[in-house]
Amino acid sequence: MQILARLKGFKNLTPVEKAKKSFFSKLQMGKLKVITVPLEQALNRVLAEDIKASENLPKFDRSAVDGYAIKAEETVGVTHFKPKTFRITSKEHIENGEVKQVWTGNPIPKGADAVVMLENTKKNNSELKVWISVAPGENISKRGEDIRRGEVAVKVGTRLKPQHLGLIAALGIANVKVFGKPKVAILATGNELVEIGAKPREDQIFEVNRLILSALCRELEAEPVDLGIARDDAAEITEKIKRGLEVADAVITTGGTSVGLSDLVPEAVNKLGKPGVIVHGMAMRPAMPTALAIVNEKPVIILSGNPVAAMIGFEVFAKPVIGVLMGLEKEESRPVIKAKITKRITTALGRKTFVRVHVFKGDGEYLAEPISTRGSGIISTMTRANGYVVVPENIEGLDEGEAVLVHLFDVVEEKEHV
Amino acid sequence: MQILARLKGFKNLTPVEKAKKSFFSKLQMGKLKVITVPLEQALNRVLAEDIKASENLPKFDRSAVDGYAIKAEETVGVTHFKPKTFRITSKEHIENGEVKQVWTGNPIPKGADAVVMLENTKKNNSELKVWISVAPGENISKRGEDIRRGEVAVKVGTRLKPQHLGLIAALGIANVKVFGKPKVAILATGNELVEIGAKPREDQIFEVNRLILSALCRELEAEPVDLGIARDDAAEITEKIKRGLEVADAVITTGGTSVGLSDLVPEAVNKLGKPGVIVHGMAMRPAMPTALAIVNEKPVIILSGNPVAAMIGFEVFAKPVIGVLMGLEKEESRPVIKAKITKRITTALGRKTFVRVHVFKGDGEYLAEPISTRGSGIISTMTRANGYVVVPENIEGLDEGEAVLVHLFDVVEEKEHV
Repeated sequence: MQILARLKGFKNLTPVEKAKKSFFSKLQMGKLKVITVPLEQALNRVLAEDIKASENLPKFDRSAVDGYAIKAEETVGVTHFKPKTFRITSKEHIENGEVKQVWTGNPIPKGADAVVMLENTKKNNSELKVWISVAPGENISKRGEDIRRGEVAVKVGTRLKPQHLGLIAALGIANVKVFGKPKVAILATGNELVEIGAKPREDQIFEVNRLILSALCRELEAEPVDLGIARDDAAEITEKIKRGLEVADAVITTGGTSVGLSDLVPEAVNKLGKPGVIVHGMAMRPAMPTALAIVNEKPVIILSGNPVAAMIGFEVFAKPVIGVLMGLEKEESRPVIKAKITKRITTALGRKTFVRVHVFKGDGEYLAEPISTRGSGIISTMTRANGYVVVPENIEGLDEGEAVLVHLFDVVEEKEHV
Repeated sequence: MQILARLKGFKNLTPVEKAKKSFFSKLQMGKLKVITVPLEQALNRVLAEDIKASENLPKFDRSAVDGYAIKAEETVGVTHFKPKTFRITSKEHIENGEVKQVWTGNPIPKGADAVVMLENTKKNNSELKVWISVAPGENISKRGEDIRRGEVAVKVGTRLKPQHLGLIAALGIANVKVFGKPKVAILATGNELVEIGAKPREDQIFEVNRLILSALCRELEAEPVDLGIARDDAAEITEKIKRGLEVADAVITTGGTSVGLSDLVPEAVNKLGKPGVIVHGMAMRPAMPTALAIVNEKPVIILSGNPVAAMIGFEVFAKPVIGVLMGLEKEESRPVIKAKITKRITTALGRKTFVRVHVFKGDGEYLAEPISTRGSGIISTMTRANGYVVVPENIEGLDEGEAVLVHLFDVVEEKEHV
């Protein structure tokens, strides 16, 4: 059946969303490993616990600005035309007619209930002229304004960015529970492949997919495990995938779908355990020959041997799988930017098409220049591009000037250094 | 002079762009350190050499699709209504009337000059029915189409993403020259600060800025060096910054501008060498008390002690400086997204204002909800936000529904897992 489908050019292709849905519905996830790490090592890790505030933050009412703590009621009616003069005190309490200098973050002295900003005052020895009125509470960060005692500060399943680390640290918490980094075993298959350091014969090419996919895993904070290169040999492929399933939480393979008549890799996977291949052949371009499998509850993602197709296949299928394996609460999408396509492109009806584009800043708007939609072996289409546009299955292409959403995988260059 | 300016609330504030320009014009950069690393260790490093192709990529004409190699001229006039039948051969050459099966990436056999896609054919034993015409060169990746011999594949100053590694590897290059990671020494100052593990007194707060700034450095692939916490003491601050200048390529400090009357840190820096403080007091909110200095050709970035102001100050000033120190060709901007602001906000005329917003997907458009513009000590404004909007100096605020560009520092949530 698989072979027939292959020869027919995958007449039964599965739409991307349907394929994902059917795969995820069959993926039974075990309990994820949890480890405790100091905050300094938690950047980009995924939080495995809710972080609750054990006390209010700030602990006390404090000034949100540089200025003078004041009794708000004493400023009623004060304006530029009717300024009022106060005595500056350094005591812990302020009395009527007094103000006390505070810097941002300082506790509000007793007796005060507002802060007048420095720029609305003028100091003259021990006196302060004020020309603005303030409302009670004005320019004060109230106790618990940042986080209230008992409130969840950062939720389980959050990828920890610098700001999350800062908030957790501000609560006095030095260590956090995070999910273990999922191990992803990566195997390349193909008789034509040689290692990057080697001297290739005329008909051989360098194997680059393991390097690319390892880097993509590292970007997600997953841990790649190298299974090397397998020849187009059923026994060798089976043996290596088996080893990958033993040492890792998921296996990714490339190739073995475009070198001959047989579906070497899907067949090897089917021999290794149940349920095996869930879906094979996607209604998409590139990455059509992708297959998704599960063996003994571990995901196996079977990607094309073409580097660009492998990258797109990773993006669409492996990334959300790794997200689940690492405990992410929500699927992480790439940043998107709205841009106008610079030239008309045609795509195939019935295929979700991932068009590589180079986005740059035009005259007051972003422009997206399509980079050759053909040739998924052409790696430079990925380095010349900084994003991709997804053209849905029911659309035959994009018109010049059409507005599109670009998913960015590299920076958009803005300007030279000043 | 500095003290007077401070007390007056920085009456002479410098616009952000002017401050950067004047700082960078005085920054004399020495030669950057270059190291050679294997490609597997080069992810996110900055390339220190132009990578040139020593041969054509692909080395030979190859098929861009799965299908049959064919002589294009033999398909002239072939259509669905007028199909043509060919003999399938497995020879190295194809003769008139013959086709040869090729998979994506296979060399094009001699005699053929195009490939007809699998789905436009039907195999019947050793015969192939074709119902489409192809032009010469169609579905062929030409020798050198990816990269031509001698062409620069990846330019010096590029941050190496997975796709760059893949392209370099495809050229057979296993090791690359990258710039050394710049060391950035980080010092927090303030009598009120205690380490995150410690038990604070009622008037003390946890020091979180070193953790946040170290994480921001790591995100850029710079190497943070911890200088600890200094009391508000001129000698201690001077000593620690001096040590930072000895061991690192740049120094970042926080605080020392909002705890009292004196500009402890800028004065300490001025004592350490020339030219000292270049600009102090920025026409911006938050991060107004930021100062930029150079001591013996090394940059010193003096940030506010408020975590949010420190983060924004890092973003605006430290990030481009670190970019230069790490050899980046161009300033790296964050991804931007166009969104509609959900409520009116006012900002101060004459101040470039960085408004934290939470971007989310509304009904067919992105919406940006402003998170309290006040209280730069309130860290949760950074965790509740996923981006910021820059309101220029000459604008007094944003109207509800106004379209803005949001600079993203965290993911925009799209949907739950399927």
